Amino acid sequence: MNQIFVGSRLRYTVNTPTTFLLNVSVAQNCYQATTEESIEVHPFHKVEECAVGPLGNRLLRLNAMPGDLTILYQATVELHAEEVDSSNVGEVNYENLPADVLTYLNPSRYCESDKLFRFAAEEFGGLVPGYSRVTAICNWTFEHLTYTPGSTGPTTTACDVLLQRSGVCRDYAHVAISLCRAMGIPARYVSGYAVNLQPPDFHGFFEAFLEGRWFLFDATRLAPVGGFVRIGTGRDAADVAFSTIRGDAQSVEMEVWADEQQQGDHLLDPDNVQTAISSA
Amino acid sequence: MNQIFVGSRLRYTVNTPTTFLLNVSVAQNCYQATTEESIEVHPFHKVEECAVGPLGNRLLRLNAMPGDLTILYQATVELHAEEVDSSNVGEVNYENLPADVLTYLNPSRYCESDKLFRFAAEEFGGLVPGYSRVTAICNWTFEHLTYTPGSTGPTTTACDVLLQRSGVCRDYAHVAISLCRAMGIPARYVSGYAVNLQPPDFHGFFEAFLEGRWFLFDATRLAPVGGFVRIGTGRDAADVAFSTIRGDAQSVEMEVWADEQQQGDHLLDPDNVQTAISSA
Amino acid sequence: MNQIFVGSRLRYTVNTPTTFLLNVSVAQNCYQATTEESIEVHPFHKVEECAVGPLGNRLLRLNAMPGDLTILYQATVELHAEEVDSSNVGEVNYENLPADVLTYLNPSRYCESDKLFRFAAEEFGGLVPGYSRVTAICNWTFEHLTYTPGSTGPTTTACDVLLQRSGVCRDYAHVAISLCRAMGIPARYVSGYAVNLQPPDFHGFFEAFLEGRWFLFDATRLAPVGGFVRIGTGRDAADVAFSTIRGDAQSVEMEVWADEQQQGDHLLDPDNVQTAISSA
Amino acid sequence: MNQIFVGSRLRYTVNTPTTFLLNVSVAQNCYQATTEESIEVHPFHKVEECAVGPLGNRLLRLNAMPGDLTILYQATVELHAEEVDSSNVGEVNYENLPADVLTYLNPSRYCESDKLFRFAAEEFGGLVPGYSRVTAICNWTFEHLTYTPGSTGPTTTACDVLLQRSGVCRDYAHVAISLCRAMGIPARYVSGYAVNLQPPDFHGFFEAFLEGRWFLFDATRLAPVGGFVRIGTGRDAADVAFSTIRGDAQSVEMEVWADEQQQGDHLLDPDNVQTAISSA
Repeated sequence: MNQIFVGSRLRYTVNTPTTFLLNVSVAQNCYQATTEESIEVHPFHKVEECAVGPLGNRLLRLNAMPGDLTILYQATVELHAEEVDSSNVGEVNYENLPADVLTYLNPSRYCESDKLFRFAAEEFGGLVPGYSRVTAICNWTFEHLTYTPGSTGPTTTACDVLLQRSGVCRDYAHVAISLCRAMGIPARYVSGYAVNLQPPDFHGFFEAFLEGRWFLFDATRLAPVGGFVRIGTGRDAADVAFSTIRGDAQSVEMEVWADEQQQGDHLLDPDNVQTAISSA
Repeated sequence: MNQIFVGSRLRYTVNTPTTFLLNVSVAQNCYQATTEESIEVHPFHKVEECAVGPLGNRLLRLNAMPGDLTILYQATVELHAEEVDSSNVGEVNYENLPADVLTYLNPSRYCESDKLFRFAAEEFGGLVPGYSRVTAICNWTFEHLTYTPGSTGPTTTACDVLLQRSGVCRDYAHVAISLCRAMGIPARYVSGYAVNLQPPDFHGFFEAFLEGRWFLFDATRLAPVGGFVRIGTGRDAADVAFSTIRGDAQSVEMEVWADEQQQGDHLLDPDNVQTAISSA
Repeated sequence: MNQIFVGSRLRYTVNTPTTFLLNVSVAQNCYQATTEESIEVHPFHKVEECAVGPLGNRLLRLNAMPGDLTILYQATVELHAEEVDSSNVGEVNYENLPADVLTYLNPSRYCESDKLFRFAAEEFGGLVPGYSRVTAICNWTFEHLTYTPGSTGPTTTACDVLLQRSGVCRDYAHVAISLCRAMGIPARYVSGYAVNLQPPDFHGFFEAFLEGRWFLFDATRLAPVGGFVRIGTGRDAADVAFSTIRGDAQSVEMEVWADEQQQGDHLLDPDNVQTAISSA
Repeated sequence: MNQIFVGSRLRYTVNTPTTFLLNVSVAQNCYQATTEESIEVHPFHKVEECAVGPLGNRLLRLNAMPGDLTILYQATVELHAEEVDSSNVGEVNYENLPADVLTYLNPSRYCESDKLFRFAAEEFGGLVPGYSRVTAICNWTFEHLTYTPGSTGPTTTACDVLLQRSGVCRDYAHVAISLCRAMGIPARYVSGYAVNLQPPDFHGFFEAFLEGRWFLFDATRLAPVGGFVRIGTGRDAADVAFSTIRGDAQSVEMEVWADEQQQGDHLLDPDNVQTAISSA
């Protein structure tokens, strides 16, 4: 068992009444138990938690008035990683895929797998199906891309990245997801906190569906998969943006952390704060 | 009440063992009641119905052996259209949108709304919010596109269509959906049967979320919305392709119908057929 | 007659031996006479002037060693603007276009006119052919785009801009060029200095071929066409980038000016400079 | 010396007065001498030959009236291939490239080399510069693409093809040109007739600039380079389309040939024909 202290502090200057939708809360699923959790907003604003579907995503929504705004999220999470002998994990034939998994074969905004059938078949079609083939897709992605902050933007897709050969974690995930889907392996995007990620930031990785369950992968090799704490799951990054803003507000500062030791002093001034989500 | 006879007959030449995933069955929801329904496959193949999620989609999956394959789907549907006075239907503020609707604001494979914020704001930002604004988006789409079979393909997106100014029903829906999402109006793709569509074919239209519920729209003006029978609902056409084929098979012939009168003689040779889905 | 003092000072930090290709010199043609001109490089480097073809472009090439590098270009130019009564200027039928003009109907890297035939025909096909139609294209471009520094990059094309509806001078020119070509009007890109441009910078505008000659247009309305001093002419910005760098060098500072009064004190330290191009 | 009989017969149905621009005539350059040449148009139409620039391209332009139209071009060409020991042919440093060659480093409509710098550097940056590196680019293109008629269209670019991994001769050339330019090797498109091409058609290949001259390459391996007869040279296929049509006309039939033996019976009915271009 693995206890991890995660959190994020987001600061904004809000110019007009603005609605924020935040994907920063730790997801609820059987692999990670949240033992403590708080959301603090300074100055006080009511926060609504929107549970979104069967994936355990927990969107936060708040309507902010003009002025400075700081949102501090903190949680203590126990990870219950399964021990998996991946050497024997195979792929699932199309005819046997569960119905609710089929949607993760469809192309999505940033993962145009429908353009990459031949590409994927040529690069990976000759490999043994299974966990090792997804690993080969991750290796290919790692080897052909250069991790380059600033080289991509919010509208950059997997196809863009396959041509320009550079990107950040989100792009690595999109490329690997697209290649998996093009090979007939359901794949989806996961956002989260990651222990030992340097520099600390929200992280993007992905899951592939193999032999009856979802397996985590990370083509960036930037942090150990065993230290990932899931925030949200979706088709691609379009579904789990950590912050969506409707209104006029600028991000001023952002701090993200994920530590195996006790978390540091990320607390706000104890006055005027709010604990909207009590510990689970 | 409106009784409609819908159906489709798909013929394939199957060269290798092939899995078919079909979106041809009428969806289950409170606006349409299926009183009779059958699926016949010639020669006999077992058909699996995969229910996909809360949208009422009913995928059919079958594994076909090499040879000729004919799939005949027929249903009798009673439409319970609501009478709506659309003149007073408004939009829902972002802060009040239900959580499960938020996903239909996200960009998707064929609806790159994230690229069209300024486009939409300039064309439609000055209009009164509500049903009439979605109607204005439909009108704009109808007026700026030319319905041109063959002008687009399976990877064509709303942005492609906005530039080339031509497309088919699927493209009209993608454009309107993208513009709605860019305006902050949740929108999603609907496939279905349509009475009086000429030439008869599967049809693609869309829904926008206004004042607490989804409303059907069709930017093509090719058939009356009151005669639409829903098959599937999704983010865009990627989610509800009427046929997805894994294997080596060619489409030989396709027939689609939707009649308010008694359906014609679309029956197969009564020998060697199967009724996999008994009437509801 | 109009005497204009133009110039630019480019400063780089050169890390490895680097070749620079510069499009900063005033072009040679019958509409602008260069009465004084100098290029100074600090520290001393030999500068080669490459005349490129019949358009009067005058590329400068230099091989710089590591260290700081400053390139100062200055010229005094007399503009001989023609008086044109544009009200009667018509388009040239395709069958009568001069052979060397035909190439400016072809699509180019940033001007995908081959995707915009229907778009252009719908927006401008009903207008009277001639100068006024090109003016209408400029007006449309001005009205539908928002001038937004930073909204586009070096790989942005006219089609990208038509969707995102924002850009800078180069993008305005690309959009107008593309729409002209799609209408059958030859059009090409022009880079230059522009009097009264705020903030001062290199400018991008375009020419359309009408009734036997090329006419200057600028869809940005940022500076008077009568004060444009041409540097280079090409199919689009790909042909006349003001600076192309092969090697490892960063731009440190750039200053550009175009004044109708005597130019200010842009001179370098008079020691260690070079005058590679004497006055014409 | 190599005598080749080339020709093409194009048939159209012309519905409205239509201007044709044809790139079917053999180019004039020192490597190929045209000993006999004729252009016949049935029914009679005047044909204008437009010489386009220093590349030796010879556009034909004709204004056709409604009705059937047949254009028959025939030429006898002697190829004077140089014997080249390619093993020692190097690349030219950027600082030494002739000015009129620099333009072939710029990206163009179908060759977006500006998006492929890292791609090219990773795949080919470690190879020995020179003829062998261009050969490696051709080999890579041949090995990663599948020749698939119908898989691409008139707006397909090199980047599209690099993703979908299929195309025709024009696409192979665009990919190789783009990768050469991204490596700093000037490259341009060549259209022509090709002996032993199966099925016979116009062919597209390319040239790279190495050690002071242009060398022909063909990544498709469909026909021997020694049997290529050049029609036109340009930045990419946008510049040398064999037929550009302004008006309403449909292609009815097209026949192309290139034989080392005496040409067959491609002649029109000798009445009502025209010999617009006498033998050179």
